[in-house]
Formats: sequence, C-alpha cells, structure tokens
Amino acid sequence: MKTRIAILGYGNIGKAVEQAALASEDMELAGIFHHNDNPDTIDADVVALCTPTREVPAFAEQLLQRGIATVDSFDIHGQIYDLRKQLAPIARENRTVCVIAAGWDPGSDSVVRALLQAIAPKGITYTNFGPGRSMGHTVAAKAITGVKDALSMTIPLGTGIHRRMVYVELEAGADFATVEKLLLKDDYFAHDETHVIQVSSIDELNNVAHGVNLVRSGVSGETHNQRFEFNMAINNPALTGQVLVACARAAMRMRAEEHYGTFTMIEIPPIYLLPGSEEQLIRSLV
Amino acid sequence: MKTRIAILGYGNIGKAVEQAALASEDMELAGIFHHNDNPDTIDADVVALCTPTREVPAFAEQLLQRGIATVDSFDIHGQIYDLRKQLAPIARENRTVCVIAAGWDPGSDSVVRALLQAIAPKGITYTNFGPGRSMGHTVAAKAITGVKDALSMTIPLGTGIHRRMVYVELEAGADFATVEKLLLKDDYFAHDETHVIQVSSIDELNNVAHGVNLVRSGVSGETHNQRFEFNMAINNPALTGQVLVACARAAMRMRAEEHYGTFTMIEIPPIYLLPGSEEQLIRSLV
Repeated sequence: MKTRIAILGYGNIGKAVEQAALASEDMELAGIFHHNDNPDTIDADVVALCTPTREVPAFAEQLLQRGIATVDSFDIHGQIYDLRKQLAPIARENRTVCVIAAGWDPGSDSVVRALLQAIAPKGITYTNFGPGRSMGHTVAAKAITGVKDALSMTIPLGTGIHRRMVYVELEAGADFATVEKLLLKDDYFAHDETHVIQVSSIDELNNVAHGVNLVRSGVSGETHNQRFEFNMAINNPALTGQVLVACARAAMRMRAEEHYGTFTMIEIPPIYLLPGSEEQLIRSLV
Repeated sequence: MKTRIAILGYGNIGKAVEQAALASEDMELAGIFHHNDNPDTIDADVVALCTPTREVPAFAEQLLQRGIATVDSFDIHGQIYDLRKQLAPIARENRTVCVIAAGWDPGSDSVVRALLQAIAPKGITYTNFGPGRSMGHTVAAKAITGVKDALSMTIPLGTGIHRRMVYVELEAGADFATVEKLLLKDDYFAHDETHVIQVSSIDELNNVAHGVNLVRSGVSGETHNQRFEFNMAINNPALTGQVLVACARAAMRMRAEEHYGTFTMIEIPPIYLLPGSEEQLIRSLV
C-alpha cells in the first residue's frame, strides 16, 4: 500500500515535494491544495504543509484533529519547541503523527548537530550558512523605501559569522546612497558585515543554490581535538521537498507503531526516513 | 538515578569507555571485567562489550538472558544484520535492549549514510577511510613469515579506493625483499596499491589517529548535483568509547519505554544518545 500524500501550498517547496513524491515508489499524490483552500476537503494519509511558516501551526492543528498526519518545515528556530508542545497533545489525542521543522536547517543539519554532540560531548559546533539566498534578509531589503526588488545573499565567514551581500533593484527616481544608508541601519543588517550593490535586474541573479559548512571540534571522554565537518552544496527547495517526503514516510511508520505525537527530526530513527526493508537497509548502510 | 555501566574487556576501547563514562554526569561505573572473568558476576544496568569482536555475540547472549542491556562495536559489516537477528529475540524475551555495531564505522558513519540517502535518495556514497591504522591489515602483515611487528596504514585515494602503507619491523636474519614479496601476494594486500617499508621500530610509529571522508552526490526529487561531505579526524578508541557510552544511554531510554530488542544506530532516535532534558536539547540542537 502506497502512502497517500497531499501538498498544501504550491510554491517552490510544494513543487519540490510533488517531484520527490512522484520519484518515491512508496508514495502516491493525493492532491495539491492552495493555502486558501479549505483543508477539511483534503483526503490523505499525510499532508506536507508548504505554506508560509507562520500559517503552519493553524493548518497542522486542523488536519491533526481529523487524524491526518502532517509534516512541515517550520523554520523559526526559537519557536520550534513551543510548536511541538502545542501540537503534541492534539496529535496524540487523534492517534496521529506530526513531524515539525523538517527541512535542512532546522532538519537534517539538526540531526548532524545532535550526532556530533553525542560523540564529542564537549566542544563548540559552528553552523556556517551559504553561499545562498536568505529569505528573511531578502524580505527586509525589499521593505526599504526606494527598493523595487532585492536579493540578500548569506556568505559564510566561519565560526558562525556571516557577510550579507545585498543586491538591490531601485524604483524609478530612487537614490542609491539613501537606500544604502537606510538598509545598513536596518536591524536585520546592522550587526553583520553588509555590502549593498545596485543592479538593473534582480530576476537575472535568482538562483536557489544554498550550502552549509558545519564544524565541530570536541572532546570524546578525556580526548580533545576530535574534529568533524559536514558540508553541503545543494538546491534549497529540492532538498527541503525531499526531506518532507522522507519525514512523511517516517510519520507513517511511527503511526503504524502507535507512536503518536509531534516530533522533530532528532527524535526519529534515521532508518524510518528510508523506503525498503529493514534487512536491505541495515545490510547496505550500517 | 545514574545508569550503572560495566565494562567487559579492558583494552584501548574499554579504557576509552571508562573515560567517557566518568565524564558523563548520568553514568556511574559498575565495574571493569576482563574477558576471562565470568560475566554472571556482573551486576549492572548495561555492559559495554569491549572484547575482540568475535567474542561479542556469546557475551551479549549471556548478559541479555539476565535482562542486562549490552552495547558493542561489533565491526564485521557483512554479519551485522545476522547478529541483530540472533540477539533480537533474546533481548525481547528478557525485556531488555541491545545496541550493536556502535562505533564510528559501523556506527556514527552509518547514521550519516542513512541520513544522506534519505535526503538525496539516488546517488553514490563513497566512504573513504584514513589516514589511520587498519587493524585487519596490521594483523595480516604481522602473520607474514619474517615479520616481528607491523603497522598497516589506510590512506584514502577517493571513491572508496585506498592505498596501504605497510611498515614492517623484521625478525633477526629475515630478508626484506622476501617479506615484501610474500606480503604483496597476500589476499589482504593483493587488490590495493600497497607499499612496504622497513623500519627499525614499529613502536615508534604507533598512533591511534584515524579519519573519514564520506561523500555523496545525489538526486533530491528530480534535482541532481546535490553534494554532501562528512569529514572527521579523530582519536579512534576515544571516539568508539564515547559512542558506546552514548548508545548505553539510548539503550536505557528505549528500555524505559519498553521498546525492547536489538538495534543498530540507524534505528535509534539521535536525541536518545544525549543526556539532558528534551526541551533543552530541542531548543539548542534543532
């Protein structure tokens, strides 16, 4: 029996979930819904919530109340535990499963961070993002008076410090020096090294590439200088879509085991993310 | 309540488990036993089996039958699934937990491989080992007539291909050219690029450093060229000892949840490897 997965929200991430689901032999598309559709009309085993992050909690509640599992890539780091607390009782009462913060950060990077802290408990992990587009900073740049369109790139400088390269396309008659000054004073940019560059077309720069360089130097037992590094260079929505499909699979597995509730990726056995038999996976991966 | 962990086998790994357990606030040492002690005298919540790998299955059976949890770093890749099959019913019947193949490879590398396959399902993962000492090849080199002591270093050449740098200390009167010829014909070395180097003292070369370079280029959904890399440069027994302690902690957690059986690391939620509250871990790691 295939898992019937529906998609709610059909932007970059929704489209990537569609591709990942169609490429998965154990998944079947149960429909694509827009965020102004009534979610009560969705008939599926699991719904991938691909709406803007702030709309995720309400949609998740509504679907979980009907016993439908949900997966999302809710990405406000400081609010993930609170969302889990909010949704856990609803999932449990309705004997279903909800996987939250299932993207690459939060998400697969979180799994790497947890693993590295377990195997070298004392030490510092630095997560260096990019080069890639920052959604939050791009939105903040677009909000500056005189900016028609913008793109804020995050450039990793190591030890968790980032440079912002902000490309701006100006409205007719706007003055670049004024825009630059306003932007550099904005709270989103005031604390980082920021460069503002005027371009004639943001559209020509668009690219969904992103990356991570995650490093940890830690102590195992009494032994210092244990060094670890995780790098990736990826298409951002494609990776997020694939993680959502993998977590939808894990949700089905946990529900089948009556392990109801709301989980982040560090609470899921990695094997549950994969299709195929236990034997074949253990023989090929362990 | 602290977990009472005993150590069976007191070589490099046993000593590293001792250090990792003493450094863990939630662990208490319940005793150190040698592999010719009677395991029936062990009184502990969980036993870290640090004996030679081939002695692991019998000791695990004997302890599981008494309801005591075990963790081991059984490292014969081709036999891990069979060992799991052998020990799973014993662990379940005795309402306890057994974690097998808990080192760094198999072990933490297996978790990384599973995660990368989940997030980029099509593609090839190459696990490149070293530079570091290969136990199996070192033993094979020592068995060559005329060799007094040996050290076989594994050097990664990429795409899973390795060079063997074999250092030999000869017995009095042995001929280096003859030893080299015998060694290069040995099945352990015949298939890899192998260099044999005569030294006056192996003891002066000994070093427990090791490393991994694990790379995957894969496809998420329909998107190719998703690139991932995991590197580490570590003290080998210290890392193995720490992984064993983390898995002992996970075994206690699974037993408390009545999730009995035998598990590899890819079957364990990563958060179970860590001490501390769920809230603190999710807030800091996700």
